[in-house]
Amino acid sequence: MTPAVAHVVTVGMDPAADPEGAAVAAALGAAGVLVLSRALVEDDEGALAHALGPDDALTVILAGAGGSAGDVVRRVLARAAGARLVLNERMLAALEERYRRVDRPLPRRAERLALLPQGATVWVPAPGEPAWALESGARAFVVLPRDGGVGAALTEHLVPFARARVAGRGALLTWTLRTAGAGAAELEERLAEWLGQPARGAEVSVVPADGEVWVRLRAPGASAEDAAQALAPVEAAVAAALGADCYGRDAETLELVVARRLLARGLTLAVAESCTGGLLGHRLTNVPGSSGYFERGVLAYGNRAKQELLGVPEEVLRAHGAVSAPCAEAMARGIVERSGSACGLAITGVAGPDGGTPAKPVGTVFVGLAHGGAVTSRHFRFAGDRARVKWQSTQMALDMLRRAL
Amino acid sequence: MTPAVAHVVTVGMDPAADPEGAAVAAALGAAGVLVLSRALVEDDEGALAHALGPDDALTVILAGAGGSAGDVVRRVLARAAGARLVLNERMLAALEERYRRVDRPLPRRAERLALLPQGATVWVPAPGEPAWALESGARAFVVLPRDGGVGAALTEHLVPFARARVAGRGALLTWTLRTAGAGAAELEERLAEWLGQPARGAEVSVVPADGEVWVRLRAPGASAEDAAQALAPVEAAVAAALGADCYGRDAETLELVVARRLLARGLTLAVAESCTGGLLGHRLTNVPGSSGYFERGVLAYGNRAKQELLGVPEEVLRAHGAVSAPCAEAMARGIVERSGSACGLAITGVAGPDGGTPAKPVGTVFVGLAHGGAVTSRHFRFAGDRARVKWQSTQMALDMLRRAL
Repeated sequence: MTPAVAHVVTVGMDPAADPEGAAVAAALGAAGVLVLSRALVEDDEGALAHALGPDDALTVILAGAGGSAGDVVRRVLARAAGARLVLNERMLAALEERYRRVDRPLPRRAERLALLPQGATVWVPAPGEPAWALESGARAFVVLPRDGGVGAALTEHLVPFARARVAGRGALLTWTLRTAGAGAAELEERLAEWLGQPARGAEVSVVPADGEVWVRLRAPGASAEDAAQALAPVEAAVAAALGADCYGRDAETLELVVARRLLARGLTLAVAESCTGGLLGHRLTNVPGSSGYFERGVLAYGNRAKQELLGVPEEVLRAHGAVSAPCAEAMARGIVERSGSACGLAITGVAGPDGGTPAKPVGTVFVGLAHGGAVTSRHFRFAGDRARVKWQSTQMALDMLRRAL
Repeated sequence: MTPAVAHVVTVGMDPAADPEGAAVAAALGAAGVLVLSRALVEDDEGALAHALGPDDALTVILAGAGGSAGDVVRRVLARAAGARLVLNERMLAALEERYRRVDRPLPRRAERLALLPQGATVWVPAPGEPAWALESGARAFVVLPRDGGVGAALTEHLVPFARARVAGRGALLTWTLRTAGAGAAELEERLAEWLGQPARGAEVSVVPADGEVWVRLRAPGASAEDAAQALAPVEAAVAAALGADCYGRDAETLELVVARRLLARGLTLAVAESCTGGLLGHRLTNVPGSSGYFERGVLAYGNRAKQELLGVPEEVLRAHGAVSAPCAEAMARGIVERSGSACGLAITGVAGPDGGTPAKPVGTVFVGLAHGGAVTSRHFRFAGDRARVKWQSTQMALDMLRRAL
């Protein structure tokens, strides 16, 4: 049995991130569909036609219905399926509803948006927000609106559609165990008996990611639930081998895990950031409900700010400099004392590209943690550019706090 | 003449961003190559083979040389070019150098990394960091190391390689004018005479992006420089029609433009963030050299922090609430007075998904600006989820400051 595979295509290339494409890929993966690629494509017929998945695949396309992107999608899929474009009454009604909701009649030029390949199925998960699907032999296409968000179309229509395909073809389920604190080579050694052993029911591989390392588990099954049963014992064994270095699975980010532990223990957190400039606070407040544990932070970029906002002694700055363990510890102590929070995290370092010295080159970072009356710090030396150094600094700060909780 | 086109493929799919892929696409675009798609692909032979650009395209592949991704790339490209895998002496020497630099001999199992398709050209932009290229008829492939960063390989080898292809095929150059403050429909009206008029030498289109709107200009030419000459007058005319809503081109982000203006005028900036939780400070400190204008910020998430760190009067919080124009203005005034900075930006709002009320629904945001002795504020109502609301809030805050400078 060849398992169900999918490709996710976002039409309209831009250098910004593609959170909807990532959300679709994650939902398909959880349904047991192997997602082989994600692409950002120009609104160009040749480029989109080339990006469609092959003959037995499901391709999900995210595109606005209007504008040239919508026209390109309709024409390319009609050609791929060998179908004519015909007026789809259900699509027309959904579009009329969209305009009715803003008290305007459907413009004549918007009627072309209701021309879909013959045989297309229109889904209307939310009034005025149509999506559609088209099957052609073993190949399938789903078109989701990009602008309005993919929420309801994804859960109410795409996931059941994907599960129906899995029922006919079998699932290939992937779980990603997320780790922090150990390198890829070290984890490969620790997991040696699991790597490259598909005979044990699951394929295990070590994947270096951004500031952390992932351990990927993958198993086939008749359904996602069936594959999950095969993965569960492997996950338990691998997680045991990873120990405290493993902090979560799939969408469980480090900030989410830290947030859960703080909330569960009723603890509050305040942060003092220098070189990360707000990224730590940003990550902590990306978690919905963060006001339950996060009350404040300070971005003490300059030395005067470190003294005024955190009470870092001038003596510490003079004797050790702002990029030092004593400064990181004084920052952590200062934010806890001044905020009254239970925990304090502090980061100071050289993010680059300038500011490095032979003794403290670019990538030198100190993280301070104040918790339970004690203050500790760690010294890191990160590789990569400014963005990478900032990211890894917050990663290690969150991991220090996680281990302390 | 069919202009040079390219596809960028990053092997090893992960939900994190793909900054190297974006950097490669930007460099190719500036060289006059039309980049039709960017893809993240599983390290799977079938998936990578399907993701390769068609017969006349350049495909740039970012992949680590080691691990299964490297093997997949070598095998797929050998098959695509109809070439055998042979030991490449230059590649072997580069790999030996890599190990020599860490005082280790090349392991036997690493020798397979030097098996490249016959006819491949190896580039060594930095000791021990080889890249390679392969041409097969009109089709070309370039493989760049993903882990070590793409810096030198990109500027010293890929860009000249791309320019040589453009010399034989012609360029298609794209410039993106970035705007903030006006909607896509409004800009389409203002640019009506330019849209869909390729006869005037350049194709102009309006592209909604994340929290801003882009106006894309595209023109063909014998070379990138030639196309740039055709674009220059169109850019001047379109920029004049956009007026103050246009703030930059291509990689000129709002934070970069604000940073330049602050530095040029010798002004400093401090921020007070509530619902954005650090994202504004993070963006401002993503610009290298940000210590020249950014000295501090406070993340006043809770009401107590707003009072203690910014001196927001309890009266304001009681009468208007934390999500209000008076609070945003008090925050901006507070951060300027306490920091002594020339400018202060403050953001307070409801990022969601919880916390909304009928009077102040999710997406309600107030931005305060203190500058030159005056304090102003603006009220926004953003659509989308928590991440979108945070992003758009910082976007509008930066734009308010830009217009004030």
